[in-house]
Amino acid sequence: MNAEIIAVGTELLLGDTINTNAAFLSQELASLGINVYRHTVVGDNMTRLKSAYSEAFARCDLVITTGGLGPTADDITKEAAAAYFGLDMELDDNSLANIAAFFARIGQKMTENNRKQAIFPTGAKILDNFAGTAPGCIIEANGKICILLPGPPGEMKAMYSHHISDFLAQFSTGILFSRTLHMVGIGESAMEQRVADILAEQSNPTVAPYATGRPGETILRISAKAADQAAARALIDPVANLLYQRLGDYIYGEDDATLAGTVVELLKQRGLTLAIAESITGGQLAGAIVDVPGASAVFNEGVVTYSNEAKTRSLGVLPDTLRKYGAVSPQVAEEMAAGAAKTAGANIAISTTGIAGPDGGTAQKPVGLTYIGLWFNGRCQAKELRLFGNRQRIRQRAVSHALDMIRKELSNI
Amino acid sequence: MNAEIIAVGTELLLGDTINTNAAFLSQELASLGINVYRHTVVGDNMTRLKSAYSEAFARCDLVITTGGLGPTADDITKEAAAAYFGLDMELDDNSLANIAAFFARIGQKMTENNRKQAIFPTGAKILDNFAGTAPGCIIEANGKICILLPGPPGEMKAMYSHHISDFLAQFSTGILFSRTLHMVGIGESAMEQRVADILAEQSNPTVAPYATGRPGETILRISAKAADQAAARALIDPVANLLYQRLGDYIYGEDDATLAGTVVELLKQRGLTLAIAESITGGQLAGAIVDVPGASAVFNEGVVTYSNEAKTRSLGVLPDTLRKYGAVSPQVAEEMAAGAAKTAGANIAISTTGIAGPDGGTAQKPVGLTYIGLWFNGRCQAKELRLFGNRQRIRQRAVSHALDMIRKELSNI
Repeated sequence: MNAEIIAVGTELLLGDTINTNAAFLSQELASLGINVYRHTVVGDNMTRLKSAYSEAFARCDLVITTGGLGPTADDITKEAAAAYFGLDMELDDNSLANIAAFFARIGQKMTENNRKQAIFPTGAKILDNFAGTAPGCIIEANGKICILLPGPPGEMKAMYSHHISDFLAQFSTGILFSRTLHMVGIGESAMEQRVADILAEQSNPTVAPYATGRPGETILRISAKAADQAAARALIDPVANLLYQRLGDYIYGEDDATLAGTVVELLKQRGLTLAIAESITGGQLAGAIVDVPGASAVFNEGVVTYSNEAKTRSLGVLPDTLRKYGAVSPQVAEEMAAGAAKTAGANIAISTTGIAGPDGGTAQKPVGLTYIGLWFNGRCQAKELRLFGNRQRIRQRAVSHALDMIRKELSNI
Repeated sequence: MNAEIIAVGTELLLGDTINTNAAFLSQELASLGINVYRHTVVGDNMTRLKSAYSEAFARCDLVITTGGLGPTADDITKEAAAAYFGLDMELDDNSLANIAAFFARIGQKMTENNRKQAIFPTGAKILDNFAGTAPGCIIEANGKICILLPGPPGEMKAMYSHHISDFLAQFSTGILFSRTLHMVGIGESAMEQRVADILAEQSNPTVAPYATGRPGETILRISAKAADQAAARALIDPVANLLYQRLGDYIYGEDDATLAGTVVELLKQRGLTLAIAESITGGQLAGAIVDVPGASAVFNEGVVTYSNEAKTRSLGVLPDTLRKYGAVSPQVAEEMAAGAAKTAGANIAISTTGIAGPDGGTAQKPVGLTYIGLWFNGRCQAKELRLFGNRQRIRQRAVSHALDMIRKELSNI
């Protein structure tokens, strides 16, 4: 089966939004063995959107659209699809009740234009939206399939996995299956150099590095085409084993694994609790841990001590240590971690102190200089990092390194 | 002048690369007043790429392509353009010398297939690549303009600013200038209903809502086409004033403003320091504040108290209050804020407590129920929220609401 993806929205044509939805859907369709031959972006314009439908269906059997399902007059993706297929639009009482219930639940008044979100082309299969108000739908007519999904990526992804993934599986003729190895603590070029010979064998499976949105992390994906998942795994596994031999120390998990999730899992397995004391990362490290469902089993307490005074008062960092070595020093990092462990009564504690910039750097202590402190079983250690990038990226990299330091400590016990 | 952007590359259709080039070029063209009506992505396939050229030029006068200029047999963007325009391909000696010099500079051997990068459609204006090896080109034929740029974003952007920006300025009939209003505390549909009449006047300037990547926030953009920026401002400002009359309470800033940046600025102006006590947001609220350069002037200390025990020990929340009302209650939110202010000796304190899910909800206290506590000048208040979405989005929304509660409190003094 051949497919095309149409993203609808003038904000995309003005360059104000990047079309990440097309990439997500393309990966999903590729994994089902459905070929995607074109992505199109058109604005919120009836004539141009109708043309886009006609052109796409002249080339393929499946079109997935994203965007234009909202409550405003601009939102015409359903209307244009109905016009293309020659269908009427009708109100779906069930969707209207869902939308009303949604507004009741969040304690807000439902406005009249939200009704529009409950009107669909006749005969369409309606798809609940678990993450927002605009339902999607599937239209099957004239031997073609048109799937309409919302534009916000969170809503689109939730709807895809709840409704579309299984629906499309029936059209899959073979699959593209992947294993994704997540690494931390090694740069992309250093990683590639270690496995250049394996990467060069671009047959089946292929091995390729992928961009990761997470600073400090790298990804390798091994993908095989095969009749089914078992056959694909048989092709992939020997190559994965080779990669583990070369890169095993850096690989923290596979596929949907996150570094914070891996750390929470290790803590759970070992029955340990974690305390966090943050300066440079300013709450982001605790934020990453708390993003993991069930984190409360291993994380009770964190503290963000941005000033020297707070480091002393909340964590017991000695004024002498601060005076002698400065707040950005291995000594302060260690005292912060020790203080956090003591205050929270935790088994293991991690701390961060550094200079995120853009101001505050000196020749001795440049922007990016960061120390991670780790306290475990009464023993303190500190790691020095020289991070690069802007303020946000330096802080994100510090979070990755801190999580990795916990991971390494716990992997060894 | 109307334009379309064609991105060429099978990696885009597999979803392995996100098409950020189209967004960059669209913003640049919009700023020149050149309309972009469509983005297309096609694979490295001669037939499909030739069709894409034909279809695009049937609709517009300018096509910009990205990708497919490299040395491999896959790279056929120039060849397909030559075929579409009916032009021959010929070697450009100057480009060949440049490519050879590039390889000499980086100390690598030039391979035979790199010669391909020096072959262009006859009559094309060749564009040096300052950031890589593949030159681009401009073809002007049959009253149409086709600009071929490389795929790697760094090379594409460098080539655009060196060669294309000035070239396209001659076709600019004016500029598109915008003011972007950032709002918080009002949903998109409620916001639109308040200004539906203004939005409906889709002339010059236009007013349109935009998707924001920040849960809990909404955006309205006012864009005008005019000869220059002053003329555009004269068109935009009266409309902006109207919008401020209707939505002023919700607008926290314009253009590059962020909610956290606005809060830090307000604190600085008033000479106040902030303390933060987080449960549901688990460090993310402090993280948002610390992301603002210079946040250390107003933020000294935050605490993440995930367990009841930590709430009592670090913030002095009474065990009785926790027992009687539960951790997710206005009473606990208020005691957390008061405790944080006292501990840190801060002028204003904010707290969050709630149920982020996916587990932990009950009929009385469902997932999403959140209380924000605010302590200021010895007075406590708590706000109840019923948030929706997954764990991450509930927490991000709680951060937005907490920041907005500080903003509102400080705006009134």
